Amino acid sequence: MGGSRDRVSCGKNCHYCPDILSTIDDCCKDGFDFICLPIVNPRYKREFIEGPALKRDGAFTRSDMLLTSGDWGSLVVAKVSPWIDVDSANPALRKNSEMAFDQELTYANHLGVPAVMLSIQSAECCNLARIINTHIFAGHNYQYWLQIPLIAAEDCLDDVIENIPAENDPTNADRKEIDTWGWWNRVRTLCDSSKKLSIVLEVSADLPSKAVMDRWLGEPVKAAVLPTDIFITNRKGFPVLSKAHQALVHSLLKLDVQIIVSGPNNHPERSFRIYQQYLEHLWQTQEPVDNVTQFAKGYEDYLQCPLQPLMDNLQSPTYEVFEKDPVKYSQYQLAVYKALLDRVSDEDKNTKVITLMVLGAGRGPLVTASINAANKAERKIHVYAVEKNPNAVVTLENLRTEQWGNQVTVVMGDMRHWEAPTKADIIVSELLGSFGDNELSPECLDGAQKFLKDDGISIPYKYTSYLAPLMSSKLWNETKLSRDVNKSPESPFETPYVVRLHNVHLLSKAQPLFTFVHPNRGVIDNNRHESLTFPIEQDAVLHGFGGYFDCLLYKDISLSIVPQTHSPGMFSWFPIYFPIKNPQELFQGDDLCVQFWRLCTHKDVWYEWTISDPVNIPLHNPKGRSYTIGL
Amino acid sequence: MGGSRDRVSCGKNCHYCPDILSTIDDCCKDGFDFICLPIVNPRYKREFIEGPALKRDGAFTRSDMLLTSGDWGSLVVAKVSPWIDVDSANPALRKNSEMAFDQELTYANHLGVPAVMLSIQSAECCNLARIINTHIFAGHNYQYWLQIPLIAAEDCLDDVIENIPAENDPTNADRKEIDTWGWWNRVRTLCDSSKKLSIVLEVSADLPSKAVMDRWLGEPVKAAVLPTDIFITNRKGFPVLSKAHQALVHSLLKLDVQIIVSGPNNHPERSFRIYQQYLEHLWQTQEPVDNVTQFAKGYEDYLQCPLQPLMDNLQSPTYEVFEKDPVKYSQYQLAVYKALLDRVSDEDKNTKVITLMVLGAGRGPLVTASINAANKAERKIHVYAVEKNPNAVVTLENLRTEQWGNQVTVVMGDMRHWEAPTKADIIVSELLGSFGDNELSPECLDGAQKFLKDDGISIPYKYTSYLAPLMSSKLWNETKLSRDVNKSPESPFETPYVVRLHNVHLLSKAQPLFTFVHPNRGVIDNNRHESLTFPIEQDAVLHGFGGYFDCLLYKDISLSIVPQTHSPGMFSWFPIYFPIKNPQELFQGDDLCVQFWRLCTHKDVWYEWTISDPVNIPLHNPKGRSYTIGL
Ligand SMILES: C[S@@+](CC[C@H](N)C(=O)[O-])C[C@H]1O[C@@H](n2cnc3c(N)ncnc32)[C@H](O)[C@@H]1O
Ligand SMILES: C[S@@+](CC[C@H](N)C(=O)[O-])C[C@H]1O[C@@H](n2cnc3c(N)ncnc32)[C@H](O)[C@@H]1O
Repeated sequence: MGGSRDRVSCGKNCHYCPDILSTIDDCCKDGFDFICLPIVNPRYKREFIEGPALKRDGAFTRSDMLLTSGDWGSLVVAKVSPWIDVDSANPALRKNSEMAFDQELTYANHLGVPAVMLSIQSAECCNLARIINTHIFAGHNYQYWLQIPLIAAEDCLDDVIENIPAENDPTNADRKEIDTWGWWNRVRTLCDSSKKLSIVLEVSADLPSKAVMDRWLGEPVKAAVLPTDIFITNRKGFPVLSKAHQALVHSLLKLDVQIIVSGPNNHPERSFRIYQQYLEHLWQTQEPVDNVTQFAKGYEDYLQCPLQPLMDNLQSPTYEVFEKDPVKYSQYQLAVYKALLDRVSDEDKNTKVITLMVLGAGRGPLVTASINAANKAERKIHVYAVEKNPNAVVTLENLRTEQWGNQVTVVMGDMRHWEAPTKADIIVSELLGSFGDNELSPECLDGAQKFLKDDGISIPYKYTSYLAPLMSSKLWNETKLSRDVNKSPESPFETPYVVRLHNVHLLSKAQPLFTFVHPNRGVIDNNRHESLTFPIEQDAVLHGFGGYFDCLLYKDISLSIVPQTHSPGMFSWFPIYFPIKNPQELFQGDDLCVQFWRLCTHKDVWYEWTISDPVNIPLHNPKGRSYTIGL
Repeated sequence: MGGSRDRVSCGKNCHYCPDILSTIDDCCKDGFDFICLPIVNPRYKREFIEGPALKRDGAFTRSDMLLTSGDWGSLVVAKVSPWIDVDSANPALRKNSEMAFDQELTYANHLGVPAVMLSIQSAECCNLARIINTHIFAGHNYQYWLQIPLIAAEDCLDDVIENIPAENDPTNADRKEIDTWGWWNRVRTLCDSSKKLSIVLEVSADLPSKAVMDRWLGEPVKAAVLPTDIFITNRKGFPVLSKAHQALVHSLLKLDVQIIVSGPNNHPERSFRIYQQYLEHLWQTQEPVDNVTQFAKGYEDYLQCPLQPLMDNLQSPTYEVFEKDPVKYSQYQLAVYKALLDRVSDEDKNTKVITLMVLGAGRGPLVTASINAANKAERKIHVYAVEKNPNAVVTLENLRTEQWGNQVTVVMGDMRHWEAPTKADIIVSELLGSFGDNELSPECLDGAQKFLKDDGISIPYKYTSYLAPLMSSKLWNETKLSRDVNKSPESPFETPYVVRLHNVHLLSKAQPLFTFVHPNRGVIDNNRHESLTFPIEQDAVLHGFGGYFDCLLYKDISLSIVPQTHSPGMFSWFPIYFPIKNPQELFQGDDLCVQFWRLCTHKDVWYEWTISDPVNIPLHNPKGRSYTIGL
């Protein structure tokens, strides 16, 4: 599970470091947590092929003994020499760069530093990617921190040279030149989305559009460099950021991004510490988190296998978590309340007893909510609490003895096979998963509707699943890592996961997929097949789909976890994530066509999915080979 | 990595619990960390097949809502009803027991308790094992704590009935009846050595022999039950343990075992807390740990892949750890000192300069030790520091500039191919692994001896590997878990691991295996094949072999990690562990015959191993398919 820090983590970028001990000391005194240091003295040129430096003897850099390995391992990010250009068109520079790069990466690994930082300057970075990939393969332990400018130098230029007419529709090639995300994406893709790669965003005075920034938030951004010259001076003479930059830093801090301050102290009358203090101030002034965020702490991007409450029995801690939801049960109570008022007129309220059945009662919160609703509505009810989990029935029976009394009949059994002694006016159930029907509510309620009166009410009476395409290196890598030794390599990619989406970027708005209605008096067929088309507005990589649901309990009383309509404060359901096996590049203007199936046999239910536009990819989870939901 | 607590962990065993909240409260106030509680009220008989209890309605036990799931999950060990006997000869009791057992295990899983405790009463426990195994397979999360008496009831009886002549050589069957270790071993083996099983030792007033106790220390003992009636009363009126019991508790605490106090307070004038306080006192009075134990904290039973310093380059933190050893370098310094004195007479000391080559100099500690030895011996030396790791050479060159000066020549290169400018009087190297030759010291020194004078000295001049059969569920399970998805299932069992042996029992004394001598002026062949025969003195399970080495540096100056001759305080090497794929039962009186090979090609070296008596098992690591050491 993720964990987030309780203060900002700040680093200082040093271009040159004559005395490493005093430099680190100063840096710590100024409140910084780490320092970015050149691996090799920048004035110490190395020539591997030819030139005067070729035969110089002596060590090519300082001794590792200057720091303990504990300090190398926790305080230092090692920077690759900036002159190194392994994609240069000049063969001599390229060759020399390759050898120097290799030497520096090898030495950084020797030192045991946690990260190596290097800068990506253009879309010409294939050879860089290849060399990095080789070192990843060699099993080096450190992370690769790839420094990427938020805005390409060429892009800034365009704004300045006003003579050149602004093109509305730049060509793909043009766009790739200036879209720095594409540079990152090239290295990442060539390195097969390795978890060892992370991004260091170089923040400039000009900021890109919100859409561009949002896309970065779905990427593994580990740090951001703030040059001191983008700070402005406030009235008291302290360095501060513009509102726009503050907003940017705040959104990065949400992802636990570390901040690196770079450049000279522009307030030499004060210590460098003022920069760190200002960033700590930004940390402290983050807006307070909402209920759901608070609840989800530690679960960000943490993959969980979806529950199978029908086939398995839920455990006590799971019920306990459900029952803490501040919204779900009050919505149910309101729905039952309104249904009771509609069903029993004021005249009948003392004579008519409504038969209400809670189907899948768990440890009883919907029973209690129904009783509360009846009391509030001043209507009489008798409740059947039907539950097939024998362990939860222990709680129900204890509750009946100690609290509910004879108003409640506890029934242990499966609603699909229960021989009800009478028919129900109202059935109340909550058998919904993050994707609506994925805990087999349709099948369970279809089985139960035989004991619902013809004019009886089902709460809920309708639910719909939703889908949105997403980009998230993080989720995709977590999926890859979840591989089970006893299963096939594709199986983790053919399984959905319940997950709090965090380091994720949605590529298009969520759209409705499958709908179910209860009672279902027509022909019963819970197989489904739909295709959805999503407009793609920016170049991006597809890593899978976010899944959501909404539902109508009674009339317009609803529950929703769909991003655009989420019930405020409700935390009972995280979204579901359907991965795809191979990350798929998509381009601005593409129409992404997704095909989704819900398929059933008498033993189980499963989903299959694929995309059919702009490219085709193999079907995922054919015949439920990797994942089914047991009936 | 393991971690050990900083105080004793104590539980209290409750036979009956009318009010769970107050019971837990009392228990916490008395200083206990957890409580062992019956899952089901012992007075609440259940009959599943027939009988008056069959049709009784209402819950079969208390509600899970009495505690938060946090408390269930951290404070409660759930006890299975003692009347349950799934191996009973009485079919009705057996059937009823099976159903009750199933219900209790399922309910314990529902509660989310960390452990379920149940008692094993005899060697008749196959059906118990089968049911436990089924629940393990169902994926329940808790641990199974199997309560095993240290001494079987029958065994105690024997002592009492003095008429029966003591048999010197009980039959196998007799031994199995009374050897309670065998009961545990049956369940463990039937459950395929599952990690979910641990032992709770029931300590009795009588204690078994030291050999029997030592064998338990190689098993996954998680807790020990101390009945209050084995405590004696000291002069101040407090309960204390006999010296023998104290020693037993101390040896258990070393394994981080938790202590469960069971039975009535025999000092009712004081609170139950006095028992916990006494155990905390025993914790505090553990003997202080030695240097090596201190260094190894956190590494107990933690498997590490052996280094390959020839094929790979060691990293800075690794060298740093080596260099902290307080013994190794002083032994080397002594060896060089004596060799210098033997080689240069007092008359020659001002004229003769000894050429000493440190082969594999790393970051230079043997260079410094050699210079120190020369200063102390008042002999002149010139040192060549030969090292093939370019990153370590950076340190050597910095040291030469700042410390050693011209007395040292740093050479970057592989000793096997170096064209030395002169021949050496003394070569000093430390290329030894935990198993002696397993870092390819033989091959490296064979290559280097061409530049050793005919009468030159090699330090070290001889080393020998050692082997001892061992039992350790812990190591074997760690090995099984280390399976890499990209490798074959047998590969983790065909690889040796460097590991601090802790929860391990040696089945026989270590014996010497392969010896190498330098310089080697005969025909060079570093292939080896030896067989060793180990007498087995107790029934046990073989999980593999501990590997060790000793070496002679000069004359009788030695280094050793062999258990019986370990150099005091030296921590540079942990032992090595060679697993076997299938745990192998061995019996008292068996002669265990082990076959070991060291095999070489021009590219790599590997070991193969097997046993050929009392049974044969397949060869491990044929042709180095799972593990080789690169030349
Ligand atoms: C998502 S839980 C909801 C529990 C509770 N109503 C609440 O809201 O906290 C669904 C419950 O329905 C039960 N359930 C699922 N399918 C059932 C079936 N076919 N018959 C009876 N109970 C079922 C499960 O055991 C589980 O307790
Ligand atoms: C176990 S370390 C000992 C280092 C150092 N002498 C000490 O005691 O701390 C062995 C060293 O020998 C080096 N080495 C191993 N094989 C070598 C070879 N064939 N030629 C040169 N150096 C070698 C390794 O790189 C490593 O630095």
